[in-house]
Amino acid sequence: MTKEELTGLIHRKKSFLCIGLDADMDRIPSFLKEGYDDPRFEFNKRIIDATIDLAIAYKPNTSFYESGGSKGWQSLEKTINYLIKHEKGPVLTIADAKRGDIGNTSLHYARAFFETLNFDAITVNPYMGHDSVAPFLVYQGKWTIVLGLTSNPGAMDFQVLQPQFPLLLEKMGIKTCYWKKLYELVIEEAMKWGDPGKLMFVVGATHASMLDSVRELVPDHFLLIPGVGAQGGSLADISAKAMNRDVGIIVNASRSIIFASEEDDFDVKAREAARSLQQEMESILRQKFPG
Amino acid sequence: MTKEELTGLIHRKKSFLCIGLDADMDRIPSFLKEGYDDPRFEFNKRIIDATIDLAIAYKPNTSFYESGGSKGWQSLEKTINYLIKHEKGPVLTIADAKRGDIGNTSLHYARAFFETLNFDAITVNPYMGHDSVAPFLVYQGKWTIVLGLTSNPGAMDFQVLQPQFPLLLEKMGIKTCYWKKLYELVIEEAMKWGDPGKLMFVVGATHASMLDSVRELVPDHFLLIPGVGAQGGSLADISAKAMNRDVGIIVNASRSIIFASEEDDFDVKAREAARSLQQEMESILRQKFPG
Repeated sequence: MTKEELTGLIHRKKSFLCIGLDADMDRIPSFLKEGYDDPRFEFNKRIIDATIDLAIAYKPNTSFYESGGSKGWQSLEKTINYLIKHEKGPVLTIADAKRGDIGNTSLHYARAFFETLNFDAITVNPYMGHDSVAPFLVYQGKWTIVLGLTSNPGAMDFQVLQPQFPLLLEKMGIKTCYWKKLYELVIEEAMKWGDPGKLMFVVGATHASMLDSVRELVPDHFLLIPGVGAQGGSLADISAKAMNRDVGIIVNASRSIIFASEEDDFDVKAREAARSLQQEMESILRQKFPG
Repeated sequence: MTKEELTGLIHRKKSFLCIGLDADMDRIPSFLKEGYDDPRFEFNKRIIDATIDLAIAYKPNTSFYESGGSKGWQSLEKTINYLIKHEKGPVLTIADAKRGDIGNTSLHYARAFFETLNFDAITVNPYMGHDSVAPFLVYQGKWTIVLGLTSNPGAMDFQVLQPQFPLLLEKMGIKTCYWKKLYELVIEEAMKWGDPGKLMFVVGATHASMLDSVRELVPDHFLLIPGVGAQGGSLADISAKAMNRDVGIIVNASRSIIFASEEDDFDVKAREAARSLQQEMESILRQKFPG
């Protein structure tokens, strides 16, 4: 999916909602676990059917499938195939995998998610640097989403550290330095690796105050913003700070939608929660892009 | 496996060799791909049988299995089961998965690798901070191996950045600062998360010059050292800098052993390559721990 197609999809659906398919077996309603051979897939299928007119993207997180072993991985395969072939598609499919390894190894992750599973996008961890991300970026029409500033408490451990770069100001004959936080340096460096047509960044909604500076660094890249809902970020705040002329943001909600109810009515309640976010998004889009 | 058991195993086998089971379908001999339903597992089985008296650990990297989808994941399951039940065991089993996510999600990765697959150890990525690693550390008898300084070129992109911490020296009324690189700060912070009985660090052999400073930071933790062989690090150099009284290092070689030949004699050649490393290790151990 190209950037233009993604922006078009957002305007058409009046939504920039991504739904996280975190098929957590501890929280999937018991009637699905008792009555079906593949409760993870049954759960996802119903969530997708109940919400696909309201969302532009779905994002299964691999951990919830891997905990089921190869059977769980089969549920992931069935889920991506169901999304790809859905009559109400297309939607952007994101593997929330946070992979990253030495170049030769990342190449196999890229194959796993872009070829074998055929996702449109994958989240990757930047800690191992350029050669760990490069193999994902060679795929045309696919998206690589680099972790910038994540939404969890541990984001404060390393991502906000301030490395110092002494820059020799030769003309003046003096040394100076400038200050940026690690996540800003990661974004600034990684934006050289791929253009806004194939590279996005994860920036958590829980740090809305830092969205301004991220948007300054990457005016044209899409941002994938988790942390609305269960983790507490505000949609209006995020949109005001991070939207660009292409919309430029995809806001993810997982638990607040898919586990809005853990009873038999989970799909109905999921739709209500998604609908409420989509309506707020529609109103924001109308203000930002009138006419 | 406890730290004492691991050190005992090393002395008994006169080896601190870990073999990376990177079952790359592009390089597995064709007779295995043509004649067997599960060439990844057949390959691993023969490598393990040919080398298990020489190695104390095996480390499948998940990417080479995920690229085969759920069938690849089955090969991983068969491989770990084969290792666990091997008559010439025990060996330390390491899932080279480099996982890490928000706490609630990492918990499911921990289940996937420590319960469903029952590995002894997993590699994790520290970028997302403490809550992304903590769920692995609650398992008794399991090991969490945090990426410190990796062996690839991209390690130079972020891991060696120098964050600055201004420390107010109140008594003197002046500001000062001290300097450490990101990987040193990561190791220094992460060592607070778990004791040397359950936490290790990855430090690449390609940066042998930095091993001194790592060993100073974490005198008692085991280090998992990749990058010997195909990536070029020297065993003698690493051992001189990083061994401690418990031995304290596990040196991994993957491609230089398992793809020493890509023909029918791959297992024979793998044994030769492993034997050569083990003999060097035996001689190093004899010097360091005489009598």
